[in-house]
Amino acid sequence: MKQDCVFCKIVAGEIPSSKVYEDKKSLAFLDISPINKGHTLLIPKEHYEDMFSLPDDKLKELSAVLKKVSKAVIKGVKADGLNIGMNNKSAAGQIVFHAHFHLIPRYKNDGLKSWPQDKYENTDEMNKYKEMVAKSF
Amino acid sequence: MKQDCVFCKIVAGEIPSSKVYEDKKSLAFLDISPINKGHTLLIPKEHYEDMFSLPDDKLKELSAVLKKVSKAVIKGVKADGLNIGMNNKSAAGQIVFHAHFHLIPRYKNDGLKSWPQDKYENTDEMNKYKEMVAKSF
Repeated sequence: MKQDCVFCKIVAGEIPSSKVYEDKKSLAFLDISPINKGHTLLIPKEHYEDMFSLPDDKLKELSAVLKKVSKAVIKGVKADGLNIGMNNKSAAGQIVFHAHFHLIPRYKNDGLKSWPQDKYENTDEMNKYKEMVAKSF
Repeated sequence: MKQDCVFCKIVAGEIPSSKVYEDKKSLAFLDISPINKGHTLLIPKEHYEDMFSLPDDKLKELSAVLKKVSKAVIKGVKADGLNIGMNNKSAAGQIVFHAHFHLIPRYKNDGLKSWPQDKYENTDEMNKYKEMVAKSF
C-alpha cells in the first residue's frame, strides 16, 4: 500500500467505494464522475503506477478480470457497446497514479465523439514513424 | 482468417501495413489515421470480433504484448504519455470487427480533451447502478 494513494485507500477500506467486483488481487468499483452511468474502474489491489510498471504476470491476471467485468458492465446497464481505456502518465490524462482500466458503457447516439484524426504527410513520414517505433523494442 | 476482414488481410499480407512488431500470435502496425503520429494498433492474428469473444488465454498473451508495444511506442516517438483504448461494438466506435487495442502516444498540451463527465443524482442512483453491474456476473 502506498501512502496518499486514493485507490490504495479504497482497497484498504479507508475510503468508501461502490464495489461491483472483488477478488483476491483485483477490485472494480464505479467511477464517481462517470462518462456514462455504470462507468467502472478496475484496479490491481497492489500498487503499481501504470501499465509500464505492472509485472507481466499481474497484467495477465488482470486482463482476464477485465474481460469478466466488461461483460458484467455491458449486461448490467444494458449498453450497446463498451470502451476500455487506460491512461498512462499525466500527459495522457492519468490523475490517480495507481494503474486502472476504465470500462465505459456506450449507447447508440450517446453523443460521445472520437478524437480528431491527424494524417501522415506522405509514405516517407509514415515509414519514419514506423522505424522509430520498430527500433524501440 | 475471416473473409472480408481488413485486419485478417493485413495478417495474411494481402493488404500492406506499417508493421512495428510481429510475433507468432500478434501483430502491431501504425493506424493510417492516427490521433497522434505513432498511433499503433495491436491485434491477435486469429480473428476474434472483440474483447468479449477473445478467449482468456489469448487475451492474457496479448496483454503482455500490449505492454511491450506500449513501451516501444512511448520510447520510439518520445511521447509524454500513452492512452490504451479498445472499442467494443459499433456503439463504442469500433469500425473493424477484429479485436484491436489502440496505443495512442500523448504529449503535454496536445489539445486532446477527455470526454465530458456526467454525475449521479444522488447516492441512491449510484447504488442502483452498482447493483445492476454487481448482479450481472
